[in-house]
Amino acid sequence: MPTPIEFWFDFSSPYAYLASEKIEELAARHGRRVEFKPTLLGVIFRTTGGVPLTELVPPKAAYFAHDFARSARYAGVPFRQPSVFPIPTVNAARAFLWLQDKDGPLAVRFLHAAFRAYFSQDRSLAEPEVLNALATEIGTDPVAMMRGIQEPAIKDRLKALVDESIARGVFGAPTIFVDGEMFWGHDRLPQVERWLAAGPF
Amino acid sequence: MPTPIEFWFDFSSPYAYLASEKIEELAARHGRRVEFKPTLLGVIFRTTGGVPLTELVPPKAAYFAHDFARSARYAGVPFRQPSVFPIPTVNAARAFLWLQDKDGPLAVRFLHAAFRAYFSQDRSLAEPEVLNALATEIGTDPVAMMRGIQEPAIKDRLKALVDESIARGVFGAPTIFVDGEMFWGHDRLPQVERWLAAGPF
Repeated sequence: MPTPIEFWFDFSSPYAYLASEKIEELAARHGRRVEFKPTLLGVIFRTTGGVPLTELVPPKAAYFAHDFARSARYAGVPFRQPSVFPIPTVNAARAFLWLQDKDGPLAVRFLHAAFRAYFSQDRSLAEPEVLNALATEIGTDPVAMMRGIQEPAIKDRLKALVDESIARGVFGAPTIFVDGEMFWGHDRLPQVERWLAAGPF
Repeated sequence: MPTPIEFWFDFSSPYAYLASEKIEELAARHGRRVEFKPTLLGVIFRTTGGVPLTELVPPKAAYFAHDFARSARYAGVPFRQPSVFPIPTVNAARAFLWLQDKDGPLAVRFLHAAFRAYFSQDRSLAEPEVLNALATEIGTDPVAMMRGIQEPAIKDRLKALVDESIARGVFGAPTIFVDGEMFWGHDRLPQVERWLAAGPF
């Protein structure tokens, strides 16, 4: 049984959103599963000196804002630049982890619903009412989920994942590991596919 | 007659090297020419706060060193990490411009020979003897070329190009403009191709 592809993400990364819409189909074409792993770029950036793409110097920020939208059109993925960007994603990440304990496929439904809400419907995942509504939309109890994200075990799990991502050299999202090989960026999906199809290169 | 594709490069950019090996064929498939335009990332980075990819914090630097080589294998382009990186490329850029005045196709031959010398044969373009040898290899007079790169008009031309690149928002290499649309990175070649094939998207 081949090992799953690890897909590290932050709900505030537009390129992670684009890749999240492709990675499962790509993995399935090569008989692999995807293991989704949340991390927090805000914490990572404190160790790497990274900054959100839209807080870069003006020419870079302008380019990336344009590139998000164009790359989404290229990929055929609905996209609308969120009016607030970036946002704290700690609660959305915890909700994902809490749902994972309950029901893996449900957590993945939440992941896609949350990414789409933020990046195509301008609904900020930093707002509790948005997380609440998402719980209802995917068919889970919002009260239980909002209570779940306060559980110490869930908080600890996210902290451990963030630490793991830093220890393994993750500095941006999406970061994809295939058989231990690290690929950064949605624009490395063709290289991921080559690796899956034909092995190490 | 469709406008040429502008290909902005610095001889010290490994991703510009990879793209330089593909861009003419890509352009020709869609009835376009390529206009190669040198700039100097060292000067650009002083305005953007950018740093060479290998001088980033350790996890990023390690990733990019690995990614250069893997992306080259993916592209089928010979690559060997230069032992000195990055290097000052002002003289190589001036040589290119001087040759362009003499003979456009000769300048393009120099461009490919210089990129390959640096990124597949570990010959530093900062060394006058390497530029000298390249002149001989492409069939031009090395003495004339080395004198040419000292001409004030050539120095001014490069300075004007660097200024133009900054004014137009170039912050890294390769940067490709197609019909005024900016694409950064060798990994945007598929988007460039879509644009050329089917127009704006």
